[in-house]
Amino acid sequence: MEFRELGQKLLFKNNHISVITKKLQLPTHKIVDWTFLERRDAVAVIAVLDNKKLVLVKQYRPAIGKCTIEIPAGVLEPGEVPIEAAKRELEEETGYRAVNLEKVYEYYMSPGVSESKFYIYYADKLEKGVQNLDEDEFVEIKELSLEEIELLEKYLTLDGKTILGIEYAKKKLGK
Amino acid sequence: MEFRELGQKLLFKNNHISVITKKLQLPTHKIVDWTFLERRDAVAVIAVLDNKKLVLVKQYRPAIGKCTIEIPAGVLEPGEVPIEAAKRELEEETGYRAVNLEKVYEYYMSPGVSESKFYIYYADKLEKGVQNLDEDEFVEIKELSLEEIELLEKYLTLDGKTILGIEYAKKKLGK
Repeated sequence: MEFRELGQKLLFKNNHISVITKKLQLPTHKIVDWTFLERRDAVAVIAVLDNKKLVLVKQYRPAIGKCTIEIPAGVLEPGEVPIEAAKRELEEETGYRAVNLEKVYEYYMSPGVSESKFYIYYADKLEKGVQNLDEDEFVEIKELSLEEIELLEKYLTLDGKTILGIEYAKKKLGK
Repeated sequence: MEFRELGQKLLFKNNHISVITKKLQLPTHKIVDWTFLERRDAVAVIAVLDNKKLVLVKQYRPAIGKCTIEIPAGVLEPGEVPIEAAKRELEEETGYRAVNLEKVYEYYMSPGVSESKFYIYYADKLEKGVQNLDEDEFVEIKELSLEEIELLEKYLTLDGKTILGIEYAKKKLGK
Protein backbone atom coordinates (compact mmCIF):
# COMPACT_ATOMS: atom_id res chain seq x y z
CA MET A 1 0.00 0.00 0.00
CA GLU A 2 1.60 3.22 -1.04
CA PHE A 3 0.37 6.63 0.01
CA ARG A 4 2.32 9.57 -1.41
CA GLU A 5 2.21 13.02 0.10
CA LEU A 6 2.13 15.63 -2.66
CA GLY A 7 1.97 18.77 -0.57
CA GLN A 8 0.40 20.36 2.47
CA LYS A 9 -1.20 23.62 3.51
CA LEU A 10 -1.63 25.13 6.95
CA LEU A 11 -5.27 26.14 7.37
CA PHE A 12 -5.24 27.35 10.97
CA LYS A 13 -2.79 27.59 13.84
CA ASN A 14 -2.82 28.81 17.41
CA ASN A 15 -0.87 27.95 20.53
CA HIS A 16 -2.70 24.63 21.03
CA ILE A 17 -3.75 23.35 17.67
CA SER A 18 -2.96 23.43 13.95
CA VAL A 19 -5.23 22.31 11.16
CA ILE A 20 -3.39 21.10 8.06
CA THR A 21 -4.66 19.81 4.77
CA LYS A 22 -2.50 17.38 2.84
CA LYS A 23 -2.74 16.39 -0.79
CA LEU A 24 -2.34 12.60 -0.83
CA GLN A 25 -2.06 10.12 -3.65
CA LEU A 26 -3.87 6.95 -2.57
CA PRO A 27 -2.73 3.42 -3.51
CA THR A 28 -5.32 3.57 -6.31
CA HIS A 29 -3.46 6.68 -7.64
CA LYS A 30 -6.47 8.85 -6.90
CA ILE A 31 -5.50 12.24 -5.44
CA VAL A 32 -7.42 13.49 -2.40
CA ASP A 33 -7.24 16.26 0.20
CA TRP A 34 -7.29 15.04 3.79
CA THR A 35 -7.37 17.19 6.92
CA PHE A 36 -5.15 16.60 9.93
CA LEU A 37 -4.76 18.12 13.37
CA GLU A 38 -1.53 18.87 15.15
CA ARG A 39 -1.91 19.01 18.91
CA ARG A 40 0.59 18.90 21.72
CA ASP A 41 1.20 15.54 23.36
CA ALA A 42 -0.50 15.15 26.72
CA VAL A 43 0.03 13.37 30.02
CA ALA A 44 -2.30 12.14 32.74
CA VAL A 45 -1.66 10.64 36.16
CA ILE A 46 -3.48 7.86 38.04
CA ALA A 47 -2.60 9.16 41.51
CA VAL A 48 -3.28 6.79 44.40
CA LEU A 49 -3.12 7.80 48.07
CA ASP A 50 -1.97 5.48 50.87
CA ASN A 51 -5.64 4.90 51.76
CA LYS A 52 -6.14 3.69 48.15
CA LYS A 53 -8.27 6.67 47.19
CA LEU A 54 -7.67 8.20 43.77
CA VAL A 55 -6.92 11.90 43.41
CA LEU A 56 -9.31 13.35 40.83
CA VAL A 57 -10.02 16.81 39.55
CA LYS A 58 -13.46 18.35 39.23
CA GLN A 59 -13.66 21.26 36.82
CA TYR A 60 -16.07 23.12 34.59
CA ARG A 61 -15.44 22.31 30.94
CA PRO A 62 -16.74 25.06 28.65
CA ALA A 63 -16.52 22.72 25.60
CA ILE A 64 -19.29 20.55 27.03
CA GLY A 65 -20.97 23.11 29.29
CA LYS A 66 -20.67 20.88 32.36
CA CYS A 67 -18.42 19.93 35.23
CA THR A 68 -16.37 16.78 34.73
CA ILE A 69 -14.36 14.59 37.04
CA GLU A 70 -11.05 13.57 35.49
CA ILE A 71 -7.67 12.22 36.42
CA PRO A 72 -5.11 15.07 36.55
CA ALA A 73 -3.80 15.83 33.07
CA GLY A 74 -2.29 18.45 30.83
CA VAL A 75 -0.21 19.08 27.75
CA LEU A 76 3.57 19.05 27.44
CA GLU A 77 5.37 22.36 27.52
CA PRO A 78 7.75 22.91 24.58
CA GLY A 79 10.88 20.80 25.11
CA GLU A 80 9.44 18.94 28.09
CA VAL A 81 9.61 15.13 28.31
CA PRO A 82 6.42 13.27 29.28
CA ILE A 83 7.49 12.13 32.77
CA GLU A 84 8.47 15.68 33.76
CA ALA A 85 5.15 16.99 32.47
CA ALA A 86 3.32 14.31 34.48
CA LYS A 87 5.13 15.31 37.71
CA ARG A 88 4.54 19.00 37.03
CA GLU A 89 0.84 18.65 36.16
CA LEU A 90 0.13 16.42 39.15
CA GLU A 91 1.70 18.86 41.59
CA GLU A 92 0.32 22.02 39.95
CA GLU A 93 -3.23 20.70 39.71
CA THR A 94 -3.55 18.70 42.93
CA GLY A 95 -0.78 19.84 45.29
CA TYR A 96 0.55 16.25 45.50
CA ARG A 97 4.09 15.33 44.57
CA ALA A 98 4.74 11.79 43.29
CA VAL A 99 7.78 9.88 44.49
CA ASN A 100 6.97 6.85 42.34
CA LEU A 101 5.83 7.39 38.76
CA GLU A 102 5.48 4.52 36.31
CA LYS A 103 4.34 4.86 32.71
CA VAL A 104 1.47 2.43 32.15
CA TYR A 105 0.07 3.51 28.78
CA GLU A 106 1.34 5.39 25.74
CA TYR A 107 -1.16 5.72 22.93
CA TYR A 108 -2.32 7.75 19.94
CA MET A 109 -5.24 10.00 20.83
CA SER A 110 -6.81 9.99 17.42
CA PRO A 111 -4.69 8.19 14.79
CA GLY A 112 -7.03 9.06 11.92
CA VAL A 113 -6.27 12.75 12.17
CA SER A 114 -3.29 13.33 14.44
CA GLU A 115 0.01 11.88 15.58
CA SER A 116 -0.42 13.30 19.08
CA LYS A 117 0.08 10.89 21.93
CA PHE A 118 -1.22 10.50 25.45
CA TYR A 119 1.11 9.19 28.17
CA ILE A 120 -0.53 7.82 31.31
CA TYR A 121 1.41 7.34 34.53
CA TYR A 122 0.59 5.49 37.73
CA ALA A 123 1.74 7.25 40.88
CA ASP A 124 1.64 6.26 44.52
CA LYS A 125 3.65 7.26 47.62
CA LEU A 126 2.34 10.80 47.23
CA GLU A 127 3.76 13.67 49.25
CA LYS A 128 2.31 17.07 49.95
CA GLY A 129 3.66 19.55 47.42
CA VAL A 130 2.41 22.95 46.28
CA GLN A 131 -0.73 23.42 44.21
CA ASN A 132 -0.12 26.06 41.58
CA LEU A 133 -2.99 26.50 39.16
CA ASP A 134 -2.80 28.41 35.92
CA GLU A 135 -4.57 31.73 36.13
CA ASP A 136 -7.39 30.32 33.98
CA GLU A 137 -7.72 27.01 35.84
CA PHE A 138 -10.50 26.47 38.39
CA VAL A 139 -10.36 23.01 39.83
CA GLU A 140 -11.57 21.23 42.92
CA ILE A 141 -9.74 18.15 44.21
CA LYS A 142 -11.78 15.01 44.90
CA GLU A 143 -10.27 12.06 46.74
CA LEU A 144 -12.45 9.07 45.98
CA SER A 145 -12.36 5.33 46.66
CA LEU A 146 -12.93 2.89 43.81
CA GLU A 147 -16.38 2.15 45.26
CA GLU A 148 -17.27 5.85 45.12
CA ILE A 149 -15.91 6.05 41.59
CA GLU A 150 -18.02 3.08 40.48
CA LEU A 151 -21.10 4.88 41.72
CA LEU A 152 -20.03 8.02 39.90
CA GLU A 153 -19.57 6.10 36.64
CA LYS A 154 -23.26 5.25 36.71
CA TYR A 155 -24.29 8.91 36.68
CA LEU A 156 -21.54 10.85 34.92
CA THR A 157 -20.09 10.61 31.45
CA LEU A 158 -16.35 10.43 31.92
CA ASP A 159 -13.61 10.88 29.36
CA GLY A 160 -11.35 8.31 27.68
CA LYS A 161 -8.13 8.80 29.65
CA THR A 162 -10.05 8.80 32.94
CA ILE A 163 -11.84 5.52 32.15
CA LEU A 164 -8.51 3.93 31.20
CA GLY A 165 -6.98 5.24 34.42
CA ILE A 166 -9.82 3.93 36.56
CA GLU A 167 -9.74 0.51 34.87
CA TYR A 168 -6.01 0.35 35.46
CA ALA A 169 -6.39 1.27 39.13
CA LYS A 170 -9.09 -1.38 39.62
CA LYS A 171 -6.75 -4.02 38.20
CA LYS A 172 -3.73 -2.79 40.15
CA LEU A 173 -5.56 -2.47 43.46
CA GLY A 174 -7.18 -5.85 43.01
CA LYS A 175 -10.81 -4.84 42.47
CA MET B 1 -17.98 28.95 39.36
CA GLU B 2 -19.51 30.94 36.61
CA PHE B 3 -18.27 30.95 33.04
CA ARG B 4 -20.16 33.23 30.66
CA GLU B 5 -20.04 32.84 26.93
CA LEU B 6 -19.89 36.26 25.28
CA GLY B 7 -19.70 35.20 21.65
CA GLN B 8 -18.17 32.80 19.21
CA LYS B 9 -16.54 32.78 15.81
CA LEU B 10 -16.13 29.94 13.33
CA LEU B 11 -12.47 29.80 12.27
CA PHE B 12 -12.53 26.76 10.02
CA LYS B 13 -14.99 24.13 8.89
CA ASN B 14 -14.99 21.11 6.63
CA ASN B 15 -16.98 17.90 6.48
CA HIS B 16 -15.21 16.38 9.50
CA ILE B 17 -14.14 19.18 11.76
CA SER B 18 -14.89 22.74 12.81
CA VAL B 19 -12.60 25.04 14.76
CA ILE B 20 -14.43 27.63 16.84
CA THR B 21 -13.14 30.35 19.08
CA LYS B 22 -15.30 31.50 21.98
CA LYS B 23 -15.03 34.65 24.03
CA LEU B 24 -15.48 33.54 27.64
CA GLN B 25 -15.76 35.46 30.87
CA LEU B 26 -14.00 33.44 33.57
CA PRO B 27 -15.16 33.28 37.21
CA THR B 28 -12.53 35.94 37.94
CA HIS B 29 -14.34 38.19 35.37
CA LYS B 30 -11.31 38.10 33.10
CA ILE B 31 -12.26 37.76 29.43
CA VAL B 32 -10.36 35.21 27.33
CA ASP B 33 -10.54 33.58 23.89
CA TRP B 34 -10.56 29.79 23.95
CA THR B 35 -10.49 27.49 20.94
CA PHE B 36 -12.76 24.46 20.57
CA LEU B 37 -13.16 21.66 18.06
CA GLU B 38 -16.39 20.22 16.77
CA ARG B 39 -16.06 16.69 15.50
CA ARG B 40 -18.58 14.02 14.71
CA ASP B 41 -19.27 11.44 17.40
CA ALA B 42 -17.61 8.09 16.76
CA VAL B 43 -18.20 4.41 17.46
CA ALA B 44 -15.93 1.42 17.83
CA VAL B 45 -16.63 -2.29 18.22
CA ILE B 46 -14.87 -4.95 20.29
CA ALA B 47 -15.78 -7.85 17.99
CA VAL B 48 -15.16 -11.33 19.37
CA LEU B 49 -15.34 -14.53 17.29
CA ASP B 50 -16.57 -17.89 18.62
CA ASN B 51 -12.91 -18.98 18.96
CA LYS B 52 -12.38 -15.91 21.23
CA LYS B 53 -10.19 -14.12 18.70
CA LEU B 54 -10.74 -10.39 18.26
CA VAL B 55 -11.42 -8.90 14.84
CA LEU B 56 -8.99 -6.03 14.29
CA VAL B 57 -8.20 -3.76 11.39
CA LYS B 58 -4.72 -3.05 10.06
CA GLN B 59 -4.46 0.13 8.04
CA TYR B 60 -2.00 2.77 6.96
CA ARG B 61 -2.58 6.04 8.85
CA PRO B 62 -1.23 9.04 6.94
CA ALA B 63 -1.45 11.22 10.08
CA ILE B 64 1.27 9.16 11.77
CA GLY B 65 2.97 7.76 8.66
CA LYS B 66 2.60 4.17 9.85
CA CYS B 67 0.28 1.17 9.85
CA THR B 68 -1.79 0.72 12.97
CA ILE B 69 -3.87 -2.14 14.33
CA GLU B 70 -7.18 -0.91 15.73
CA ILE B 71 -10.60 -2.15 16.69
CA PRO B 72 -13.12 -1.38 13.90
CA ALA B 73 -14.38 2.20 14.22
CA GLY B 74 -15.80 5.16 12.40
CA VAL B 75 -17.85 8.32 12.70
CA LEU B 76 -21.61 8.67 12.78
CA GLU B 77 -23.37 9.64 9.58
CA PRO B 78 -25.70 12.63 9.94
CA GLY B 79 -28.87 11.52 11.74
CA GLU B 80 -27.48 8.10 12.63
CA VAL B 81 -27.73 6.72 16.18
CA PRO B 82 -24.58 5.18 17.70
CA ILE B 83 -25.71 1.55 17.71
CA GLU B 84 -26.63 1.68 14.02
CA ALA B 85 -23.28 3.28 13.20
CA ALA B 86 -21.52 0.51 15.16
CA LYS B 87 -23.35 -2.23 13.21
CA ARG B 88 -22.68 -0.48 9.92
CA GLU B 89 -18.99 0.19 10.54
CA LEU B 90 -18.36 -3.36 11.77
CA GLU B 91 -19.90 -4.90 8.67
CA GLU B 92 -18.45 -2.41 6.19
CA GLU B 93 -14.92 -2.63 7.56
CA THR B 94 -14.67 -6.31 8.47
CA GLY B 95 -17.44 -8.16 6.66
CA TYR B 96 -18.84 -9.44 9.97
CA ARG B 97 -22.39 -8.78 11.10
CA ALA B 98 -23.08 -8.65 14.85
CA VAL B 99 -26.18 -10.30 16.25
CA ASN B 100 -25.40 -9.20 19.81
CA LEU B 101 -24.21 -5.64 20.41
CA GLU B 102 -23.87 -4.20 23.90
CA LYS B 103 -22.68 -0.67 24.70
CA VAL B 104 -19.85 -0.93 27.20
CA TYR B 105 -18.40 2.60 27.21
CA GLU B 106 -19.59 6.07 26.34
CA TYR B 107 -17.06 8.82 26.92
CA TYR B 108 -15.84 12.26 25.89
CA MET B 109 -12.88 12.05 23.53
CA SER B 110 -11.28 15.28 24.61
CA PRO B 111 -13.40 17.27 27.09
CA GLY B 112 -11.00 20.22 27.16
CA VAL B 113 -11.71 21.13 23.55
CA SER B 114 -14.70 19.17 22.29
CA GLU B 115 -18.04 17.72 23.28
CA SER B 116 -17.62 14.81 20.86
CA LYS B 117 -18.19 11.37 22.28
CA PHE B 118 -16.95 7.88 21.61
CA TYR B 119 -19.33 4.93 21.99
CA ILE B 120 -17.75 1.49 22.35
CA TYR B 121 -19.73 -1.70 21.81
CA TYR B 122 -18.98 -5.33 22.60
CA ALA B 123 -20.13 -7.76 19.95
CA ASP B 124 -20.08 -11.53 19.78
CA LYS B 125 -22.09 -14.15 17.86
CA LEU B 126 -20.73 -12.72 14.61
CA GLU B 127 -22.14 -13.76 11.24
CA LYS B 128 -20.62 -13.42 7.81
CA GLY B 129 -21.91 -10.20 6.21
CA VAL B 130 -20.59 -8.13 3.33
CA GLN B 131 -17.42 -6.05 3.57
CA ASN B 132 -17.95 -2.73 1.83
CA LEU B 133 -15.06 -0.34 2.20
CA ASP B 134 -15.19 3.33 1.38
CA GLU B 135 -13.37 4.12 -1.83
CA ASP B 136 -10.54 5.69 0.19
CA GLU B 137 -10.28 2.93 2.79
CA PHE B 138 -7.54 0.29 2.55
CA VAL B 139 -7.75 -2.15 5.41
CA GLU B 140 -6.60 -5.65 6.18
CA ILE B 141 -8.51 -7.78 8.71
CA LYS B 142 -6.53 -9.44 11.50
CA GLU B 143 -8.12 -12.07 13.74
CA LEU B 144 -5.97 -12.29 16.83
CA SER B 145 -6.12 -14.07 20.18
CA LEU B 146 -5.57 -12.12 23.39
CA GLU B 147 -2.15 -13.79 23.68
CA GLU B 148 -1.21 -12.54 20.22
CA ILE B 149 -2.51 -9.08 21.09
CA GLU B 150 -0.45 -8.97 24.29
CA LEU B 151 2.66 -9.65 22.23
CA LEU B 152 1.65 -6.93 19.78
CA GLU B 153 1.19 -4.42 22.61
CA LYS B 154 4.88 -4.80 23.44
CA TYR B 155 5.97 -3.67 19.97
CA LEU B 156 3.28 -1.36 18.62
CA THR B 157 1.86 1.89 19.89
CA LEU B 158 -1.90 1.45 19.86
CA ASP B 159 -4.61 4.08 20.19
CA GLY B 160 -6.87 4.92 23.13
CA LYS B 161 -10.12 3.25 22.01
CA THR B 162 -8.22 0.08 21.03
CA ILE B 163 -6.48 -0.18 24.42
CA LEU B 164 -9.83 0.29 26.17
CA GLY B 165 -11.38 -2.36 23.93
CA ILE B 166 -8.58 -4.85 24.57
CA GLU B 167 -8.69 -4.27 28.33
CA TYR B 168 -12.44 -4.84 28.28
CA ALA B 169 -12.07 -8.05 26.26
CA LYS B 170 -9.43 -9.36 28.69
CA LYS B 171 -11.78 -8.79 31.60
CA LYS B 172 -14.82 -10.22 29.80
CA LEU B 173 -13.03 -13.30 28.50
CA GLY B 174 -11.44 -13.93 31.87
CA LYS B 175 -7.80 -13.14 31.12
